[in-house]
Amino acid sequence: MSSAPAVISSVSLSTSEAKWLVLKKLTYRDAEGKERFWECAERTTRKSSGIDAVAVLALIRSKTNAFPISTIVIEQYRPPIDKFIIVENILRQCLGLIDDGETPEQAAIRELEEETGFKATSVVEATPVVVADPGMTNANMKLVVVCVDLADKMETPRQKLDAGEFIVKRVVEIAKLNDELKEYDAKGFVVDAKLAHWAAGYEMARRIAAGEFA
Amino acid sequence: MSSAPAVISSVSLSTSEAKWLVLKKLTYRDAEGKERFWECAERTTRKSSGIDAVAVLALIRSKTNAFPISTIVIEQYRPPIDKFIIVENILRQCLGLIDDGETPEQAAIRELEEETGFKATSVVEATPVVVADPGMTNANMKLVVVCVDLADKMETPRQKLDAGEFIVKRVVEIAKLNDELKEYDAKGFVVDAKLAHWAAGYEMARRIAAGEFA
Repeated sequence: MSSAPAVISSVSLSTSEAKWLVLKKLTYRDAEGKERFWECAERTTRKSSGIDAVAVLALIRSKTNAFPISTIVIEQYRPPIDKFIIVENILRQCLGLIDDGETPEQAAIRELEEETGFKATSVVEATPVVVADPGMTNANMKLVVVCVDLADKMETPRQKLDAGEFIVKRVVEIAKLNDELKEYDAKGFVVDAKLAHWAAGYEMARRIAAGEFA
Repeated sequence: MSSAPAVISSVSLSTSEAKWLVLKKLTYRDAEGKERFWECAERTTRKSSGIDAVAVLALIRSKTNAFPISTIVIEQYRPPIDKFIIVENILRQCLGLIDDGETPEQAAIRELEEETGFKATSVVEATPVVVADPGMTNANMKLVVVCVDLADKMETPRQKLDAGEFIVKRVVEIAKLNDELKEYDAKGFVVDAKLAHWAAGYEMARRIAAGEFA
């Protein structure tokens, strides 16, 4: 039986009872040598890799140009937002998704196949380790962009989800990603800021190349 | 007298003592109707706008094409990371930076001028309200892209910073932003994930348009 997920209750949680997150009070010296304070939230799950998450953005292309270059977005319910969000495929250390000893690139390729069925053929690029919301938390991540080469037309391979995982994947033409994310928003989904920025940067390059700002 | 800012100490903070952040325990019903729990961190500072932050990305252009289209990045120390970060210009509700009654676009234009001296001439686009790290927090933001039209060559207007604000701004050619962010990382700065994604999306559009993935 399936129903719409929803938050039922929300209560303040003491730091000592929390398992996944911790609040910290930082004392720091500012540029004038003055002591100041800062509050931040940290994940308790960071391991020796030093990375909390890896996001995978797949470029799916056809060797015969049977379809335009496309990517995959994930629709997934997230309790902190209490809505379905739209996101790149993300692997989290706190879920044990970055196996010990794997590079972020290896983890990206393995997890893309498990969650979407698509097999990456190469790694196109990877960002440095970057920070999601550095005024509030030390949480960090790395974006890995991979290529998925299909022989001809679009395939829709089967996911290999664990029990209890509810993930909807959707293939979106890269050139239409920015518009599609705005449509998702209009329909009540909430878009991940990083994916929205990637799509906005992509769209701006297209507009500048078209001479719109000359 | 100026010195390098640094974290001196970090201690666990109880939720009851925290002023800016709170830990919450959410009880939610999943897609199968089963009750589950989720931990999240929230800012305590969200107001009626419902938006925690506005990021401003400026496109600076010359009416006589005296320089290539450029943007401004901000170098700023952030205690949760204990390093200097590179970020778009960001206005935070928790700092009272989004004045009551302002639209995000109005706030973006006002704050860009205060922090960098550049006067925006138009709003190019704005994302929906998007979420920074939706597995961990409800924190959200909106990206506003504005145009700054300069008559001829690049100007470097004066900032109007409040006392105690330490912000370095740097003008970067848009087409070189992705490479510049990687250089910042190599020099020990940490790049904001959203800005890194915008630059990566921009660079990917350029590579795809150049036929690199055909």
